[in-house]
Amino acid sequence: MKKVLVLLGPNLNLLGRREPEVYGSRTLEEVMSGLGEEATALGIEIEVFQSNHEGVLVDRIQEARERFDGILFNPGGFSHTSVALRDAVAACGLDVILVHLSNTWAREPFRRREVVGPACRGAILGLGEAGFSAGLCVFRRIWPD
Amino acid sequence: MKKVLVLLGPNLNLLGRREPEVYGSRTLEEVMSGLGEEATALGIEIEVFQSNHEGVLVDRIQEARERFDGILFNPGGFSHTSVALRDAVAACGLDVILVHLSNTWAREPFRRREVVGPACRGAILGLGEAGFSAGLCVFRRIWPD
Amino acid sequence: MKKVLVLLGPNLNLLGRREPEVYGSRTLEEVMSGLGEEATALGIEIEVFQSNHEGVLVDRIQEARERFDGILFNPGGFSHTSVALRDAVAACGLDVILVHLSNTWAREPFRRREVVGPACRGAILGLGEAGFSAGLCVFRRIWPD
Amino acid sequence: MKKVLVLLGPNLNLLGRREPEVYGSRTLEEVMSGLGEEATALGIEIEVFQSNHEGVLVDRIQEARERFDGILFNPGGFSHTSVALRDAVAACGLDVILVHLSNTWAREPFRRREVVGPACRGAILGLGEAGFSAGLCVFRRIWPD
Amino acid sequence: MKKVLVLLGPNLNLLGRREPEVYGSRTLEEVMSGLGEEATALGIEIEVFQSNHEGVLVDRIQEARERFDGILFNPGGFSHTSVALRDAVAACGLDVILVHLSNTWAREPFRRREVVGPACRGAILGLGEAGFSAGLCVFRRIWPD
Amino acid sequence: MKKVLVLLGPNLNLLGRREPEVYGSRTLEEVMSGLGEEATALGIEIEVFQSNHEGVLVDRIQEARERFDGILFNPGGFSHTSVALRDAVAACGLDVILVHLSNTWAREPFRRREVVGPACRGAILGLGEAGFSAGLCVFRRIWPD
Amino acid sequence: MKKVLVLLGPNLNLLGRREPEVYGSRTLEEVMSGLGEEATALGIEIEVFQSNHEGVLVDRIQEARERFDGILFNPGGFSHTSVALRDAVAACGLDVILVHLSNTWAREPFRRREVVGPACRGAILGLGEAGFSAGLCVFRRIWPD
Amino acid sequence: MKKVLVLLGPNLNLLGRREPEVYGSRTLEEVMSGLGEEATALGIEIEVFQSNHEGVLVDRIQEARERFDGILFNPGGFSHTSVALRDAVAACGLDVILVHLSNTWAREPFRRREVVGPACRGAILGLGEAGFSAGLCVFRRIWPD
Amino acid sequence: MKKVLVLLGPNLNLLGRREPEVYGSRTLEEVMSGLGEEATALGIEIEVFQSNHEGVLVDRIQEARERFDGILFNPGGFSHTSVALRDAVAACGLDVILVHLSNTWAREPFRRREVVGPACRGAILGLGEAGFSAGLCVFRRIWPD
Amino acid sequence: MKKVLVLLGPNLNLLGRREPEVYGSRTLEEVMSGLGEEATALGIEIEVFQSNHEGVLVDRIQEARERFDGILFNPGGFSHTSVALRDAVAACGLDVILVHLSNTWAREPFRRREVVGPACRGAILGLGEAGFSAGLCVFRRIWPD
Amino acid sequence: MKKVLVLLGPNLNLLGRREPEVYGSRTLEEVMSGLGEEATALGIEIEVFQSNHEGVLVDRIQEARERFDGILFNPGGFSHTSVALRDAVAACGLDVILVHLSNTWAREPFRRREVVGPACRGAILGLGEAGFSAGLCVFRRIWPD
Amino acid sequence: MKKVLVLLGPNLNLLGRREPEVYGSRTLEEVMSGLGEEATALGIEIEVFQSNHEGVLVDRIQEARERFDGILFNPGGFSHTSVALRDAVAACGLDVILVHLSNTWAREPFRRREVVGPACRGAILGLGEAGFSAGLCVFRRIWPD
Repeated sequence: MKKVLVLLGPNLNLLGRREPEVYGSRTLEEVMSGLGEEATALGIEIEVFQSNHEGVLVDRIQEARERFDGILFNPGGFSHTSVALRDAVAACGLDVILVHLSNTWAREPFRRREVVGPACRGAILGLGEAGFSAGLCVFRRIWPD
Repeated sequence: MKKVLVLLGPNLNLLGRREPEVYGSRTLEEVMSGLGEEATALGIEIEVFQSNHEGVLVDRIQEARERFDGILFNPGGFSHTSVALRDAVAACGLDVILVHLSNTWAREPFRRREVVGPACRGAILGLGEAGFSAGLCVFRRIWPD
Repeated sequence: MKKVLVLLGPNLNLLGRREPEVYGSRTLEEVMSGLGEEATALGIEIEVFQSNHEGVLVDRIQEARERFDGILFNPGGFSHTSVALRDAVAACGLDVILVHLSNTWAREPFRRREVVGPACRGAILGLGEAGFSAGLCVFRRIWPD
Repeated sequence: MKKVLVLLGPNLNLLGRREPEVYGSRTLEEVMSGLGEEATALGIEIEVFQSNHEGVLVDRIQEARERFDGILFNPGGFSHTSVALRDAVAACGLDVILVHLSNTWAREPFRRREVVGPACRGAILGLGEAGFSAGLCVFRRIWPD
Repeated sequence: MKKVLVLLGPNLNLLGRREPEVYGSRTLEEVMSGLGEEATALGIEIEVFQSNHEGVLVDRIQEARERFDGILFNPGGFSHTSVALRDAVAACGLDVILVHLSNTWAREPFRRREVVGPACRGAILGLGEAGFSAGLCVFRRIWPD
Repeated sequence: MKKVLVLLGPNLNLLGRREPEVYGSRTLEEVMSGLGEEATALGIEIEVFQSNHEGVLVDRIQEARERFDGILFNPGGFSHTSVALRDAVAACGLDVILVHLSNTWAREPFRRREVVGPACRGAILGLGEAGFSAGLCVFRRIWPD
Repeated sequence: MKKVLVLLGPNLNLLGRREPEVYGSRTLEEVMSGLGEEATALGIEIEVFQSNHEGVLVDRIQEARERFDGILFNPGGFSHTSVALRDAVAACGLDVILVHLSNTWAREPFRRREVVGPACRGAILGLGEAGFSAGLCVFRRIWPD
Repeated sequence: MKKVLVLLGPNLNLLGRREPEVYGSRTLEEVMSGLGEEATALGIEIEVFQSNHEGVLVDRIQEARERFDGILFNPGGFSHTSVALRDAVAACGLDVILVHLSNTWAREPFRRREVVGPACRGAILGLGEAGFSAGLCVFRRIWPD
Repeated sequence: MKKVLVLLGPNLNLLGRREPEVYGSRTLEEVMSGLGEEATALGIEIEVFQSNHEGVLVDRIQEARERFDGILFNPGGFSHTSVALRDAVAACGLDVILVHLSNTWAREPFRRREVVGPACRGAILGLGEAGFSAGLCVFRRIWPD
Repeated sequence: MKKVLVLLGPNLNLLGRREPEVYGSRTLEEVMSGLGEEATALGIEIEVFQSNHEGVLVDRIQEARERFDGILFNPGGFSHTSVALRDAVAACGLDVILVHLSNTWAREPFRRREVVGPACRGAILGLGEAGFSAGLCVFRRIWPD
Repeated sequence: MKKVLVLLGPNLNLLGRREPEVYGSRTLEEVMSGLGEEATALGIEIEVFQSNHEGVLVDRIQEARERFDGILFNPGGFSHTSVALRDAVAACGLDVILVHLSNTWAREPFRRREVVGPACRGAILGLGEAGFSAGLCVFRRIWPD
Repeated sequence: MKKVLVLLGPNLNLLGRREPEVYGSRTLEEVMSGLGEEATALGIEIEVFQSNHEGVLVDRIQEARERFDGILFNPGGFSHTSVALRDAVAACGLDVILVHLSNTWAREPFRRREVVGPACRGAILGLGEAGFSAGLCVFRRIWPD
């Protein structure tokens, strides 16, 4: 069975409580529990980890190499500034798919700058929690069984 | 049954023949035939249309309103410059998901500018033909049956 | 009798259906039929042509030289990017007045860039369908009888 | 009868004497006297006021609220820099139409920047004194009798 | 007793009438009368002066040197462009605190540029009329009795 | 009694030791002890927390929602780059006032860029430790008893 | 015998009629007929195609692969904006030489930006119709007989 | 006898009192009285006028046409922003020489932008009060007796 | 004996495993053990500390003041964005030499921006692990015995 | 017989030795000897001069006026920065054709800036040594016998 | 007697022959011979030196220290790019006045950038050969006898 | 024995006389004589060459290939603008280490742009004359005996 790390950056623990008209009204727990079920149906096991600390996220990406086949990564606000995370993604050797819940191109100009994104294999923007599901579909499709 | 227009912009008819290391080696016909099967499995009917003409793509988006529930749109190079397509997407009232085969953030600077993208509901970048499949998964997930 | 080409670019065929709070709720047919009456009252004959195709608009401007005395031109989104239309306007030798229905200076930053506008004799922005009427007034006033 | 303030900024008192090939050879008095006649024909009364002082123009816009139904405003060079005038226009609650005699898009780059324009309802550029007439036509057309 | 000049730039005379949801619904007179009472309680005498004229504001800052111990300065829109006011502030030798009623960083991009601000000792942004009170608190605290 | 979190970012623990001509010569402990007394006099209780870790500051802002009525926030150098802190401020639902000890507009260009500031209710710049006192005055004035 | 497609973009059909002091006074037919003779002398056959439609030009470049050995391409105004043409040139696998009649570096700033040019093998600027002849010379010289 | 208007903008009345290490320690009266003597020796009569009001300076330049042969103009801070003054200079038809006391290129970046300067015949920067004398020398040299 | 802190930022723990063609194939342990020997030969004692956490690096720099004579600092990706680290370096009062293993000027544009570097005494770029040795040589040479 | 100066800037003496995959493997002597033969066949005499010194190139362009009918000029790296060479070209009154061996638009961004190019009659880019031959063809074609 | 080096950069040897409508029709020899007479009248001896070589100009500025009291420096096109000349001026310890014959602010944008100018004491622009005379007047006025 | 060219650009001959607080008070001769001794101790022979002429420096780099193993290069002000030197460095095939005496990142903005630096193997900034010593250490360390 393939293993995917669902790695979540700052403020994503507030899901369901923070601007629900933008991010949806389900909590992170609810969303991830649903995602786990979808993963299982696809023959994928997921592990979810959230942190508001850039350094902790870097540590996790470094360690992921040994234990995971891919990462679904929502770096939150770090996506637009963190060279450290970009370098960690580039160095980890895994398939990393970036997921943003909102369409960052349609928001403030500083969110249009992507530092982490160019180092990922691909990205899914603006599709809410369905973006995570879509990421799993992609892993299922690009990985040989 | 839901209907999705798979709308493809300039040079996508060259798929499989143009820089296969970037875009993959399967032709557009092969890719779309596979996608049709995936769609059927999800209870979605797709119609594929490709054109190198910006105006023809605008026409199609305008007409889509009557006949489709959503659009998977790869505007090719028009994505970075076409205000006409952006306005057509904004006016059509359908769920439009932008699909780029390559990770445009990791290429030339002018591809980092998105004119059409901000008017779409969301976007999928850099995941090759799996990006179309992922778009269908998202439609399946966000539309009530 | 003077002849004016009313030339309309992409998405203007959607008038009345697209964001009516921005563009007004009358359809293009209604607006142009009213404009025709105003024109007649001013001793001007108008011909209306709309296309979503940049090349078709270039063709029309080139041909206008023989048959028209002036052009009221709403290039829609092409206004912000099309060097081809700018060059056609500069080459046609007619009085061309640009008309934007909305105040493009008050919208997204990319609409603040005008490529076609500097080649026109003048421009009318943000005054809705009254902008076309105003353009006719100007032609009436600057042309000797 | 509707009342319109024709408000003119710095150097417009030089009309007819300053670069006549750009601005025309009629003096401000001649132009405005003609405009007054056109206004009367449209059932509009105009009052003309010119000043080289930004603060005086701000004062006038503030006072206009009580006595006028709309403003035809040529802010001259202040158009490109004055936040004070922009804020006054935004606060006055009247229909304000900006008029530039020349096509500012086709001149020096610093004239392409509009600070006052985005706060106006619309603008008329490059049509010389006919621009004022066109502005009156628009008021006549958008105001109920 | 210390003396503070409360100096107010263009359009601040409209307070209470202009966009009350942004600037509050109390008039300038009401706000300043309340501020006078707060000042007295702090052992400070205030004098309030408002003008829409940049030159008049420059004159006042130059004269303030003789008669005041500090200035609470809301330059309104001049804050973003006026080198003349900046130079006057730098030359006057008094403690000058800039006050903006709204959070200018969260508004249009041109309001993010501060020309006057860097020449002031400090600034208070976005706190409405409480910003003036806060300015007086600061004067009280940094001036020896 | 109202409760305010005084939240301090990187290097503020060096207060009194770091460039005293810029930041003053009193230590953080001295400054905060004085601030506590001023707070008590205003019927406000303060809690002071300093960290050099962006993630820890994000955690604290998230937790503040339950226990505080407002935040006086000096993000130090994070003010100019941290989208994570900006999002946390926007999500916390409390009145947050940004405090910079120095006038950041008058320093290096990179300090003129504010990422956190636009998400705060307001800001106080350049007034040294008196800026914290001023922030408390504002809370006292804008909160009903 | 080698075959070269002489592909001409928008407004080049106006040659001889449009700003003759810039573009020369011979018509496109005259220029191309002369060029055909020069080509024959070099053992090259040319085929001339002009269109004002970006999409038609893309189509032609795609089809050229089968029938031509090289392209002399004057994209007119599309040269400065069209990613679609750039991608078509990059994909076609032929030697493509860009020809601009005027020295685009010495004209408006927007003509200094080249989108199509970097994808071509080389470019010839500012040498009028002699630029086409020069392009044929180059083909003759770089192709083995 | 030739007549020169010495026109001085905002804050120049503070000469001798404002940053004497930058602007010198002689007052405006002293400097201008010395300049008058130098002028007389050159057969030139000068008239000195200072104002902090942009509009007043525009008025004076407009009136100068009738009464003066040239202008020595130190626009102070308006030099970097005032389109109104630039247009007045361009329209007045006199030889205008700009004088800045300090070397504006060696100061803050915003002083490196010249709006008024390009409309003047020439400029003298950074030479203190000797700059005015040099301007008179130039007038003497370029004007026939 | 002098003491030097060798402080290493994010992803430097991956040395030898991450892009060895760029960063060399020796692990961090191997490199630092060799550096220790070189240091001893120069009469310098080194202590090595690596962290992926910006806040931890700030903490370490603050504490270094008491225990070290200088810092060899490779901030990794933080070098291009961290104002917090820059301020910590400026405040610590030690000689800090920045070391980048690769020539950051020859890589992506965002690596050309240095935020930490200007606050350091000097920098060594692009010389691989020899850069650390060179840093020790410099300390030996600039410090009196 | 017409005379053409083939003027070559810095590092072109390294031709054949420097990055042969970019610049070709023939030495400057070989290339120029071949070019001489082509010139003779066209009834043109060439003189070749190479220098790494900007001043020497300026001298040569100034002297060329007397002795040559045209210049084929490859300014090497000076093309992107030298105002002195641009001015010399503009002043020399000869037909000057710029030749770059590589397509400078497709290389580093700083090579996309042309300072010398806009002052030349035209330019030939990216066609290797065939670019010099093409330049001769153009001279032959635009000069009367 | 004071000694002034009149140092002239590239293309100034062409004076009188190059664009006489911009630079005047007198040759360098004529201009300098007249300047010598003016100098003598002021009790100043001048020495004139022109070179098209940046390095030669740097050499001369370095040597000037011993033999001259001031430099009138027209760096020609080097003024906009040469850091070497700027550093030489800053190091030479003499009063250096920059002279441009034309008003560089009113020409191409790249001439608006001054690299050498900020290191000079002052500058005189756009006043033709009278600018050199004015420079001598300034030296006479600022130097004690 | 290895041979290193110590190549020095404009104004470095002034060492010890030019801004000693920035560049140190030892003359170039003293510094280089000391460096020679250090080199000998490392088994390296150095040859020192200084010139204010860009072309001479290009010549020297080209010739160095035959006679040297590496270059310590301080291009002075040319570092920020010279494409010719950059190309020479890239073409010479030697290890080139750039040395700046001062920390150029902490000076004027134009010194933050490096044109020559990206073509070098590495760089040493801000460490004064110790930077040359450090460069020798690096050569010693990266070259096999």
